[in-house]
Amino acid sequence: MAGQKVQRQTGVALWRQIADRIRTSINHGDFDDTGMVPPETVLALQFGVNRHTIRSALAALAQEGIVRAVQGRGTLIERKERLSFPISKRTRFSQGIGDQVRETRSVLLAATEEAASAELARQLKIKTGTRLVRLETLGQADNRPVSRATNWFPADRFGAIAEVYRTTGSITKAFRELGVPDYVRVVTEITATHADEGDLADLQLSPGAIVLITQALNTDLDNVPVQYSVSRFAADRVRFTIEN
Amino acid sequence: MAGQKVQRQTGVALWRQIADRIRTSINHGDFDDTGMVPPETVLALQFGVNRHTIRSALAALAQEGIVRAVQGRGTLIERKERLSFPISKRTRFSQGIGDQVRETRSVLLAATEEAASAELARQLKIKTGTRLVRLETLGQADNRPVSRATNWFPADRFGAIAEVYRTTGSITKAFRELGVPDYVRVVTEITATHADEGDLADLQLSPGAIVLITQALNTDLDNVPVQYSVSRFAADRVRFTIEN
Repeated sequence: MAGQKVQRQTGVALWRQIADRIRTSINHGDFDDTGMVPPETVLALQFGVNRHTIRSALAALAQEGIVRAVQGRGTLIERKERLSFPISKRTRFSQGIGDQVRETRSVLLAATEEAASAELARQLKIKTGTRLVRLETLGQADNRPVSRATNWFPADRFGAIAEVYRTTGSITKAFRELGVPDYVRVVTEITATHADEGDLADLQLSPGAIVLITQALNTDLDNVPVQYSVSRFAADRVRFTIEN
Repeated sequence: MAGQKVQRQTGVALWRQIADRIRTSINHGDFDDTGMVPPETVLALQFGVNRHTIRSALAALAQEGIVRAVQGRGTLIERKERLSFPISKRTRFSQGIGDQVRETRSVLLAATEEAASAELARQLKIKTGTRLVRLETLGQADNRPVSRATNWFPADRFGAIAEVYRTTGSITKAFRELGVPDYVRVVTEITATHADEGDLADLQLSPGAIVLITQALNTDLDNVPVQYSVSRFAADRVRFTIEN
C-alpha cells in the first residue's frame, strides 16, 4: 500500500482514514494474491497505530460487506469488483449489469405527484408547474442495494406509471405498457459527493462513504423527453463505462 | 438545507460533516439568492452545534476556495459551478473546458520510462514488459488545479513525447509533432474515491475530499492504442457530461 502515513488532527478519525486506505488497496487488487487483508499486527505496524484502531477500521469495512472476519483465519476480502454500468444510448439499470450478477431488482420506495420546478421543466422541455409523477426507486443487485433514484415523468402521458411499475418492477416495461416501445438516453452528467443520510440508510453505507450521482434525460424515439432521473450509486460498488 | 442533523461518533468530526453539508448546499444552489452562506449563529442553531464548530467548517471550505470570509459582511460563496468535462470521442483536457474558463494549462510534473505491467499491456494491446513513457501531468484551469493524470505511451513511437510536451504543454500538439495528426477516445471508465496524499498536495484538497477517477484509452485513427491515462479530478470542481 502506497502512502502509509495517516494524518492526525484532520477532522477524520484515524480508523476511518485507515478504513479508506484499506478499501482503496482492496480495489487496487493489492491483496489479490491472498484474497485476505494483512494481519492486524502487520497493519498496525504499517500505519503506526494500535490494533484497536485497525480493528475499528476493519469493523467498518465488514459492515459495508467489503471484508469478513473469519475465526482463526483472519480477514477475508468479500468483494472488490465494482459492477460496471455502461453509459450509452441504451442505458437501463437492469440490462447494463445483468450479466455481472445473478439477479437485479428495482424496488419502488415512494410515488408522488408534483409540479415541475424551473430546473425540471428545463430538462423535460415542458412548462414550469406541469404535473409530474415522481418515483423513488432502489436498484438492487443480488439483494445488495446499488443505487437509489428519483425519477420524474410528465403526468399527462405517464399518470399510471407508478401502478404499472409496481407490478412490472421495470421502467422499460412500464414505458412499453404506456405506449413507449423504446426510449434512449440522450445526456448523462456524472458527479460525486459524500453520502447523505438517505444514502446511508437506503444504500447501507457508513458515514464518510462516497456516492456517484448521475443526472440523466431519456427521450422517446421522437426526441420527446419522457424521464429525468437523479440516481445515487454507492461509489464502492460501481464504475461507469463509456465507449465511443 | 435538507437533513440538518449531524451524527456524532461516526469517525468523522462534526466540523467536517458540517463542512460537507454546507458544500453540498452550495452546489445545490441553496444560497443562490444571497450568494452568501447563512450567518454562523444561524448555522449553529440549524446543526445544533456551537459557533466554534461552524467556524472550523467554514475555515475548511475557505481553504478549498469555496467560500471567503469578508470582514463585517459574512461568508461569501466564491465558487459553486463545476467545470463540465464532456466525455466523447473528442475528449481532450483543454478543449473540453476551454469556453468555461479564461485559461487552461497542463504542467509536466514528472517523466520516466518503465516496462508495461500486465494490466497496461492489456489496455495498450502490447506485450508485457514493452517500454513505455510515463508522464505525470497536472491540469489547471484559471491557475487552479483541476486534475492530475498519469499517462502512458508506447516508447517506440513516442520516446520523445516528454520533451515535446514540455515545450508545447499539450498532448494533442505533442502527438501531432510525433506523427499522430489526430486521435480518439475509445473507452472511459469513471469511479470515485477518497483523495490520497498526492491528491491533497497536487489538487490542494483537504482530507476527506473526493476525487473522480477516469481511466481512458486513446487510439490513433487506425485504432492503434497511443495513450492510456488515469486521471484524478477534484470532485467538487468538475462534472462529466456524456451526450449520446
